[in-house]
Amino acid sequence: MSHLAREMYNENANALETLLLQRFRRIRRVSEALCAPLEIEDYLIQSMPDVSPPKWHLAHVTWFFEAFVLKPFLPGYQTPDPAYDYFFNSYYETHGTPFPRAQRGLISRPTVADVYRFRAYVDEAMEALLMHLPEENAEEIVRRTELGLNHEQQHQELLLMDIKHILAQNPLHPCYRSDLATPAAAVAPVAPLRWHAYPGGVCQIGADGSEFAFDCETPRHRVYLEPFQLASRLVTNGEYLAFIEDQGYARSNLWLSDGFALLRKNGWQAPLYWEKVDGSWYHMTLSGLQPIDEQAPVCHVSFYEAEAYASWAGARLPSEAEWELAAARLQPTGNFMENDYLRPVACDMLADTSPQQMFGDVWEWTASAYRPYPGFKPLPGSLGEYNGKFMSSQMVLRGGCCATPADHIRATYRNFFYPSMRWQFAGLRLAKEI
Amino acid sequence: MSHLAREMYNENANALETLLLQRFRRIRRVSEALCAPLEIEDYLIQSMPDVSPPKWHLAHVTWFFEAFVLKPFLPGYQTPDPAYDYFFNSYYETHGTPFPRAQRGLISRPTVADVYRFRAYVDEAMEALLMHLPEENAEEIVRRTELGLNHEQQHQELLLMDIKHILAQNPLHPCYRSDLATPAAAVAPVAPLRWHAYPGGVCQIGADGSEFAFDCETPRHRVYLEPFQLASRLVTNGEYLAFIEDQGYARSNLWLSDGFALLRKNGWQAPLYWEKVDGSWYHMTLSGLQPIDEQAPVCHVSFYEAEAYASWAGARLPSEAEWELAAARLQPTGNFMENDYLRPVACDMLADTSPQQMFGDVWEWTASAYRPYPGFKPLPGSLGEYNGKFMSSQMVLRGGCCATPADHIRATYRNFFYPSMRWQFAGLRLAKEI
Amino acid sequence: MSHLAREMYNENANALETLLLQRFRRIRRVSEALCAPLEIEDYLIQSMPDVSPPKWHLAHVTWFFEAFVLKPFLPGYQTPDPAYDYFFNSYYETHGTPFPRAQRGLISRPTVADVYRFRAYVDEAMEALLMHLPEENAEEIVRRTELGLNHEQQHQELLLMDIKHILAQNPLHPCYRSDLATPAAAVAPVAPLRWHAYPGGVCQIGADGSEFAFDCETPRHRVYLEPFQLASRLVTNGEYLAFIEDQGYARSNLWLSDGFALLRKNGWQAPLYWEKVDGSWYHMTLSGLQPIDEQAPVCHVSFYEAEAYASWAGARLPSEAEWELAAARLQPTGNFMENDYLRPVACDMLADTSPQQMFGDVWEWTASAYRPYPGFKPLPGSLGEYNGKFMSSQMVLRGGCCATPADHIRATYRNFFYPSMRWQFAGLRLAKEI
Amino acid sequence: MSHLAREMYNENANALETLLLQRFRRIRRVSEALCAPLEIEDYLIQSMPDVSPPKWHLAHVTWFFEAFVLKPFLPGYQTPDPAYDYFFNSYYETHGTPFPRAQRGLISRPTVADVYRFRAYVDEAMEALLMHLPEENAEEIVRRTELGLNHEQQHQELLLMDIKHILAQNPLHPCYRSDLATPAAAVAPVAPLRWHAYPGGVCQIGADGSEFAFDCETPRHRVYLEPFQLASRLVTNGEYLAFIEDQGYARSNLWLSDGFALLRKNGWQAPLYWEKVDGSWYHMTLSGLQPIDEQAPVCHVSFYEAEAYASWAGARLPSEAEWELAAARLQPTGNFMENDYLRPVACDMLADTSPQQMFGDVWEWTASAYRPYPGFKPLPGSLGEYNGKFMSSQMVLRGGCCATPADHIRATYRNFFYPSMRWQFAGLRLAKEI
Repeated sequence: MSHLAREMYNENANALETLLLQRFRRIRRVSEALCAPLEIEDYLIQSMPDVSPPKWHLAHVTWFFEAFVLKPFLPGYQTPDPAYDYFFNSYYETHGTPFPRAQRGLISRPTVADVYRFRAYVDEAMEALLMHLPEENAEEIVRRTELGLNHEQQHQELLLMDIKHILAQNPLHPCYRSDLATPAAAVAPVAPLRWHAYPGGVCQIGADGSEFAFDCETPRHRVYLEPFQLASRLVTNGEYLAFIEDQGYARSNLWLSDGFALLRKNGWQAPLYWEKVDGSWYHMTLSGLQPIDEQAPVCHVSFYEAEAYASWAGARLPSEAEWELAAARLQPTGNFMENDYLRPVACDMLADTSPQQMFGDVWEWTASAYRPYPGFKPLPGSLGEYNGKFMSSQMVLRGGCCATPADHIRATYRNFFYPSMRWQFAGLRLAKEI
Repeated sequence: MSHLAREMYNENANALETLLLQRFRRIRRVSEALCAPLEIEDYLIQSMPDVSPPKWHLAHVTWFFEAFVLKPFLPGYQTPDPAYDYFFNSYYETHGTPFPRAQRGLISRPTVADVYRFRAYVDEAMEALLMHLPEENAEEIVRRTELGLNHEQQHQELLLMDIKHILAQNPLHPCYRSDLATPAAAVAPVAPLRWHAYPGGVCQIGADGSEFAFDCETPRHRVYLEPFQLASRLVTNGEYLAFIEDQGYARSNLWLSDGFALLRKNGWQAPLYWEKVDGSWYHMTLSGLQPIDEQAPVCHVSFYEAEAYASWAGARLPSEAEWELAAARLQPTGNFMENDYLRPVACDMLADTSPQQMFGDVWEWTASAYRPYPGFKPLPGSLGEYNGKFMSSQMVLRGGCCATPADHIRATYRNFFYPSMRWQFAGLRLAKEI
Repeated sequence: MSHLAREMYNENANALETLLLQRFRRIRRVSEALCAPLEIEDYLIQSMPDVSPPKWHLAHVTWFFEAFVLKPFLPGYQTPDPAYDYFFNSYYETHGTPFPRAQRGLISRPTVADVYRFRAYVDEAMEALLMHLPEENAEEIVRRTELGLNHEQQHQELLLMDIKHILAQNPLHPCYRSDLATPAAAVAPVAPLRWHAYPGGVCQIGADGSEFAFDCETPRHRVYLEPFQLASRLVTNGEYLAFIEDQGYARSNLWLSDGFALLRKNGWQAPLYWEKVDGSWYHMTLSGLQPIDEQAPVCHVSFYEAEAYASWAGARLPSEAEWELAAARLQPTGNFMENDYLRPVACDMLADTSPQQMFGDVWEWTASAYRPYPGFKPLPGSLGEYNGKFMSSQMVLRGGCCATPADHIRATYRNFFYPSMRWQFAGLRLAKEI
Repeated sequence: MSHLAREMYNENANALETLLLQRFRRIRRVSEALCAPLEIEDYLIQSMPDVSPPKWHLAHVTWFFEAFVLKPFLPGYQTPDPAYDYFFNSYYETHGTPFPRAQRGLISRPTVADVYRFRAYVDEAMEALLMHLPEENAEEIVRRTELGLNHEQQHQELLLMDIKHILAQNPLHPCYRSDLATPAAAVAPVAPLRWHAYPGGVCQIGADGSEFAFDCETPRHRVYLEPFQLASRLVTNGEYLAFIEDQGYARSNLWLSDGFALLRKNGWQAPLYWEKVDGSWYHMTLSGLQPIDEQAPVCHVSFYEAEAYASWAGARLPSEAEWELAAARLQPTGNFMENDYLRPVACDMLADTSPQQMFGDVWEWTASAYRPYPGFKPLPGSLGEYNGKFMSSQMVLRGGCCATPADHIRATYRNFFYPSMRWQFAGLRLAKEI
């Protein structure tokens, strides 16, 4: 490398370092800000096996940087406690046996204060590393740091999902925050649902490498789509109520067999968090118990409920390719975490040349099982466990939600949950043939 | 309709009736022949919730004709016992609440003799109906009878799967039949695995309506496939043993997360039915406990085991579209029920211009989740529950097996099981990118 | 031993042998007679883990003679099948690992015919042995044969309990026998309940060795009893109905905590086998579904229900010592298996100087936990597992029932079941302080 | 009442009030002192359904005074939060539906600080009431306050049991307190076990009303005892180790059937909290992981283990009457909570005219099921649920333990646990016939 080249490299590298460092600080700060309203007691609860205590989330995302960046790349790095590697490894079996997931709520120590100390310790080490990136590993450090930050953003959404679930166990309906933002009051009911047509044919989906993406979004590849239509907005609580009142939860022919069996076993009558008080529907929110807003998108439904609703409505869910084809042309803007509503809100529908609410508000269940794209290769080493090993029995959701950081989403983003799960912010948009 | 036209119609109809009647008789007889080697006691056992007592199978397939053909279309038809409609409805919720599946093994009456009387009674009524098809409903009767016969063939395979599982509970390893056919002894080890290349592009899959097909095989539609290769034969027991001996069941990185959790919980160390006797592997077969034949295809593996093996082998499973593209060009011949081996046998590999063993021997796990094809419409009425409602969390298998009736299979046929299931005759074929 | 003594011994021994042989034949015949009304299919069902298939009962009682009499004492005895020792060992861990109890219903072979052949084979060997008792082991052979016959009688009652439970799974309410005996119709309602007083003090209970008794009935020992009263007859269905209608199953304060939790979990609203048809109570019986007879003793209640009823009635259950003190003075006559009613019947109450129905009709739950008597010693060897190892968490029942062989019961007899169990013929009698 | 009489009454009453008030303050303080070493995080954990979070204990004992003393007897008393009546009711069904026990660990609010505020609030109200006892209800208030204080002392022991179990979940073996007292080092091994003989006969057991006792200890009544012997001290860890090393956990004939099944299911190899580290036995204690002290009494064994050990040792457990007969002559002194060892310690055996360690160290499993004494009457109203409703399937333990407040125990005291439970400080003493 010539002297000039090296200088330019250094300059760019410095700019990159600075940017990454700023981003690192900003994202790390957000996680702590999300937990600021919590009592120490709230940090400890594991309300079901799928939920992790907030304390664990804060520590796990920190462990990720320690395990995958600091230990391999910061010479002389010493962990503050070797036990953390066992406690805060989520599921990386090739890294070492993780602490049993369902028992995360049984461990009082390390304390919340210990975890914040761990965060500060790792932050300091990360800052030292990022400020003086060792040249030979710079690329890999940046790549892994970027992955770690995206990982932490995923856990920010998980934190909000889990905090909601934790507080919802409490019959007092405690409020996470009473100062959440409120959208400008809608003057009129939400616009009627319309359809946008797409011609189909051979299309391309998947990440093209121009920006960060998880391995499961790659490779970009061709798919063949029949012509289809997509609904202009999300299904609303009001529409979903009509389904409930039309005995939707009692009509087996609308349901997948697994879904109807689950409905029966669990006695489902409505989405998660809904409860009837004196004849009216309310739901638990991050602001406590609130009346249902009929204009807002329905949320906290399982895939089974989404499919049953779609059958009832004479439509279907879009495939992930259909969704991505439509979304790829749009700006990824919408009601995200930064809006500080932390709940889906009614579609204001100012424009109608394209579907609204494609990004934000609620994750949209698709008709597609979460399986590898043709030619998919997971990341090398333990990071290969990040996505690939979950590719069975789960369904893809698209578009992000009101708890997703705005810069974390993109048209190619594939989220995934088991079809029975309801505690994520998930709703649906209808599709149909032409 | 002119006099001549009507006459021709009648003639064709009569030929059709005759054909259908012969086919009805033949298929009905096969079910009973399959049960002939059983003791009455064997007919009663439900060895796990997924298994049904053979008695129940014989009655259920008979109920199918009663419920969907005789009651709607044979005037004056009287059921021999109204309770049968409750006992022998499998899962048609819209037809009436079915008897709880997991309790089928708790019901001693109706007896086996009662069930055979029920079969004879329905056969007589069906023969009467088929011999004098009422003109106005002829088409629907034929369609439903054909469906009923295909349904019964599916249960013939289930009978063999379930009988094997039932007898395998018994530590004495009782023999279903000691007179099963044996293939001509292979003089040499099975040929090394080779690869067949396919160019991909926009292809068509699905049933085109030219022959009987289940609703889930429709509509025929276009898919885009990347170029791929398919293995020349099935994976053998010998190859799978190498995977076992290479610690395949202990290496988490080869496994889907759900699969590895299941393996741990259940202590899986080998395919279902395998057991080690004095240091050698044996497996329970329909001829009792037998040594493993290393040349024969591996069988009774779950989807998880199939994917783990493929990872270990540096390959992957084919998608169902890839499999169908390759199979569509081949004759659907192979080692089926009629061979009377009732176990997968070594590939004799006389020709090698195309993949061998695509049909018969073992169902081949594909990489594809069982979901509706674009534009899928289930059958109307209760028969709409036949396939569509199972389209979640299951995987597609292709090609039929050694327990499938030869005239029941075709290239478009989609079988499906949960990824954890192992009691069906399921194995795998490798695929990979080019 | 003098010549004369030996001659007398021989004569007595021959008489004993003849008596024992007759008794052996008679009791063995009864077991088969009880199964005569069954279809082969009925022999196979294990309707819950506590129930054994009738086939198993017939084989197990036979195995008992083989394992504990023939193998040790009949020179050259050969079992017809070594596997039977595994299949038909119930719970004698020191004899060898028994086949898992909950899986008895999963084994179709040996068949029912095999089991009857096993019975005939063992009977022949036993007859040979009993006809020529080897002098040196005569006493032990007689003792064990007697134990084996009492054991078989216990299983005769179990057969009737289990057959009832098996048939009750069937929504058709099949009839075990339609020709059961019927008591002479009661002309009047059952007499009002009266109380019999007992002074208490230091009493003796337990078997004194004068006749056959199980080890758990020994040793005879002193207990101190406060004065008490015992009800003149069993609690009737009519009385129990009043408890039900007074919201007995909803009033937690009447119930033991474990019982109320169980009631809630299982949704108990009435005794086992009761069901409401068009507003009237019926119950499953060995003659199929029958209306409740309000005069007959209530049956198929758990200990929890018995105690709750007693609380509601302002009384309590008797202790086993109280019960035995009262029973010891009475003839052990009553409604037993030989009456061929096979259900509890109304008290005819001809005499009232002492409590009625103390023997037969229903086993009476006592207030006593099943624990060893002071100085209890179990039988030596594997037979020590007969009773002693079950002495935790179970309650004592006394008096025999309508399914107990008449010569199997005595005042000292201790039966035992877990407090949650209901499929045995169990009811209750009230007691109270003076 | 004369003026003088009233004056004397008042004087006595004042003295009583003062005593009671002092006792109230002292006992309430102890509960908080026991929790002082905890982190807030420790207060939240419910490590198994039987364990309650320490926060819940502190609140529940406070609720007891509110529900049973303040609300009925302090005019104008206002609860600080009506929801507490739901959260902190343990099991008083007649008082209102309690919050589900197994979910106590899912509730983060009220917080620990809220609970301490609740305690202070109730303490203030109780002090006001106790300082000015209203004449007409004085007796009942004193009786209930006394019950409430005994109740709180029971929970002090539960707190220590539960804290130990909570911390034991943590693989780091955190220390509850590192400053626990240590007994003077034993100079010699514990004295060999000797036997003390008792003649038996008609004896009296149960509380005579001269001091506080729970309802289940009454009425005092006669029992008949055969002559028996009692071991001079508790079974030690060293003796128990010999049982373990003699394959005690593998020999089914030593065990009750339920116990052996549990042992197999749970893989028990040693008492709870024992673990082998590098070939040596350690156990979790309130001072963290410590080596086993062979001289100290064995602890944390189930009833099944206690009985199996006794069988192995050729002895048995004492009945509760035997134990009480022996204990009634002794001073109730021993190693209690106030010693601040919080673990059982070796017997120093200065005197040997009577059994040692009868009080304190470990609760002694007896051979007696926990059932009502003859003539037992529970307390009236909701307080009747205190003891009586638990009288099924549990066993009696006697003598208190190292975590029991010294003034809480007496010879008539009946503790009770299910035979499977091990987290209480329970060990055993041998008995045998003469």
